[in-house]
Amino acid sequence: MSRNYVTPSILPGFMELLPAEQMLFNKLLDTIRSSYELFGFIPLDTPTIEKSEILLAKSGGETEKQIYRFTKGDNDIALRFDLTVPLARYVAQHFNELTFPFRRYHIGKVFRGEKPQKGRFREFYQCDIDIVGNGSLSLINDAEILNVIYYTFKALGFDRFTVRINNRKILNGLFESMGIENSTEVLRAIDKLEKIGEKGVLDELEEAGIDRATGEKILEFIRIKGQPAQIVGELKNLGIKNGLFETGVAELAEVIEYIGHFGIPESNYAVDLTIARGLDYYTGTVYETILNDYPGIGSVCSGGRYDDLAGNYTKQNLPGVGISIGLTRLFYQLVQGGIIEKGKKATPTNLLLIPMADTLGHVLEISTKIRKAGIPTEVYFNEGKLGKKFAYADKLGIPYAVAIGEDEIRTGRYRLKNMITGEQKELGLEELIEEVRANT
Amino acid sequence: MSRNYVTPSILPGFMELLPAEQMLFNKLLDTIRSSYELFGFIPLDTPTIEKSEILLAKSGGETEKQIYRFTKGDNDIALRFDLTVPLARYVAQHFNELTFPFRRYHIGKVFRGEKPQKGRFREFYQCDIDIVGNGSLSLINDAEILNVIYYTFKALGFDRFTVRINNRKILNGLFESMGIENSTEVLRAIDKLEKIGEKGVLDELEEAGIDRATGEKILEFIRIKGQPAQIVGELKNLGIKNGLFETGVAELAEVIEYIGHFGIPESNYAVDLTIARGLDYYTGTVYETILNDYPGIGSVCSGGRYDDLAGNYTKQNLPGVGISIGLTRLFYQLVQGGIIEKGKKATPTNLLLIPMADTLGHVLEISTKIRKAGIPTEVYFNEGKLGKKFAYADKLGIPYAVAIGEDEIRTGRYRLKNMITGEQKELGLEELIEEVRANT
Repeated sequence: MSRNYVTPSILPGFMELLPAEQMLFNKLLDTIRSSYELFGFIPLDTPTIEKSEILLAKSGGETEKQIYRFTKGDNDIALRFDLTVPLARYVAQHFNELTFPFRRYHIGKVFRGEKPQKGRFREFYQCDIDIVGNGSLSLINDAEILNVIYYTFKALGFDRFTVRINNRKILNGLFESMGIENSTEVLRAIDKLEKIGEKGVLDELEEAGIDRATGEKILEFIRIKGQPAQIVGELKNLGIKNGLFETGVAELAEVIEYIGHFGIPESNYAVDLTIARGLDYYTGTVYETILNDYPGIGSVCSGGRYDDLAGNYTKQNLPGVGISIGLTRLFYQLVQGGIIEKGKKATPTNLLLIPMADTLGHVLEISTKIRKAGIPTEVYFNEGKLGKKFAYADKLGIPYAVAIGEDEIRTGRYRLKNMITGEQKELGLEELIEEVRANT
Repeated sequence: MSRNYVTPSILPGFMELLPAEQMLFNKLLDTIRSSYELFGFIPLDTPTIEKSEILLAKSGGETEKQIYRFTKGDNDIALRFDLTVPLARYVAQHFNELTFPFRRYHIGKVFRGEKPQKGRFREFYQCDIDIVGNGSLSLINDAEILNVIYYTFKALGFDRFTVRINNRKILNGLFESMGIENSTEVLRAIDKLEKIGEKGVLDELEEAGIDRATGEKILEFIRIKGQPAQIVGELKNLGIKNGLFETGVAELAEVIEYIGHFGIPESNYAVDLTIARGLDYYTGTVYETILNDYPGIGSVCSGGRYDDLAGNYTKQNLPGVGISIGLTRLFYQLVQGGIIEKGKKATPTNLLLIPMADTLGHVLEISTKIRKAGIPTEVYFNEGKLGKKFAYADKLGIPYAVAIGEDEIRTGRYRLKNMITGEQKELGLEELIEEVRANT
């Protein structure tokens, strides 16, 4: 009988992992989740599908083009493209049932129909935290968020990373004070500093209609580097008389002071006056996070402060501050760059029990005892030669295996094989459990 | 300034939870996940969106109507409606990279555009395990799956539940032996036994064109009740000469024997010869799970054995056995029925630190120490009266809170308040950590 098969494949731009990679991915995901929970962020889960009018209440342009939008029956619906819009809708909808400040985390998939390209995905995990206030929210929360980023990346195993912060009011106030309206082009020029140098930036600014004197003033501004407190000092010394600018500098100074309280090492954060994080969303503190040794990856955790989370859905004033880790892309880059490596372990199992001859009943009994001790345990059920059974453990990267025959049952002593070293130990059941537990 | 707001709401048929409910939901989800991992099932995560030709390779009828299908660019795509089709595609696609038997679990959302009705959801979590063999798969795996169901529901806190099993070959063989072709109608009549009684079933069978004698024979068959081994004995005594029937009985006998090895109490499983689990998918063992005290909920965990998982995508013969827990619906019913109750706890936080006057720096220092001990800890940052701060802990169901002023810092003694009993204890930092850890 000949059949037509549908070729098994997935759509381009979607990530799918093999077991060993998935184990590693889940480990990162679990680490992030534990970190968020350790700081008391509340888990949230919202529908993947929402009304288009909700998801598109604010956005236009790129979002509208990228969103997966369709109709089902009479409903104009779409897949969420981030976790912030659903948060805004959730807080507006359930306002009376929530306690503020509302600290929530949300780890879930979002969808964007971008052109597929290396390292960009159409379906990807975001891991978000936000703190939303009712009417007001102390700036100490901006420092708290930085502290959570710091703790999370330490927990993920990184030491050499820098959380860069800035305050949007500073750039906006600076531009305002200079009468600059086309701030987009100015920011674009500033972004190219490392590539094209100061002269190049000045030229680009001139092309954008910024005169040389103003251009020099902008350069003077972005030349400001140093320890956070130094930068604040220099900003104050610029003598720029602009309300927005001065508020921004004061906010930055306050956030920096709080960061000091949190005890975050100065090697892990910096003020970077060029960070803008897009143009229309954030209104105060903004964050980017760089892996010092892999700056090419770009920011691995970004976010900021916003004045009004849910202005499209409610008259309640809900200021907030939050960040997001785009885990799918980060994972891809960490693996591609050889920064993390998947292990051999392709299963949660830490111990494989191999029944010999007629010992199945006994082995099953033992397996229950071992699982009760919390050790992920599998019994090998297939027929076959003993070598093949150990090979199964080896292929899956199961760290321990033990074959159990009549002798083992009679004596209560088991030859536990360490699949990594090849070493064998003869142990009683309790000792065996301890050995596996201590080393996995 | 007047604004137009988009009313914040979600689509009908979608579940969204408030924090305390979400905490409870996540607890169930985590319990299921831990249970699956304890048995060595490998985590899998596949794209939510797949090619329509993949998802619809087998199905027709209801699935085609319910599926969320749409186009994006040139792609005809759809949201997965279960986790089994993606598993089939995954195993076919990655066949050479997997180790068999392939034991995987997958917890994820699936989508079905059913008519919304109470307790039915259009987006819901499925929690699946499957064991897939390469060419063959021992029947002991059918018993293993039952053991995992048993362990999982015990872990979820249930004692009075029954996993009902049957073997599809028995019913199919019986009908074959009787020359019955319209088995759908026969099964529908059998299903009504409890409602309409034996006489009613006979009448319905006659309407379906089954003569009285054959009807009596069917009744004789479904009357068979008792302990699993008894049922097998009686089935053999029926003297039905049909290859399929006899194979089914032999398989059931073998699975029951293995279940005995696993030590599953007879109060938690039963053979039920009327279970059919749909008509076109399973080919051997089938499972349903009933909460004894809430039979109206229906099956809370179902599944079965299939001969050929991925026949639409590959010529590889991949028999398997698996089950699924539809957690969203189950959760809804458990909560609606008052079978489980959400607690007051609406946050992961177990300890709230309340800084007084100028103690913030010190409190933050302590918070880091406490988190390092693994206790989810939050610092209350808002200004306000002390009563309001404790009220925050109370509203969120945070079990412990402590206000920290100059005195506490000087003496190193803290008045820890148990928010449930109201009791206060004066403790050193280490004692405080131990107290919270021991009771949360």
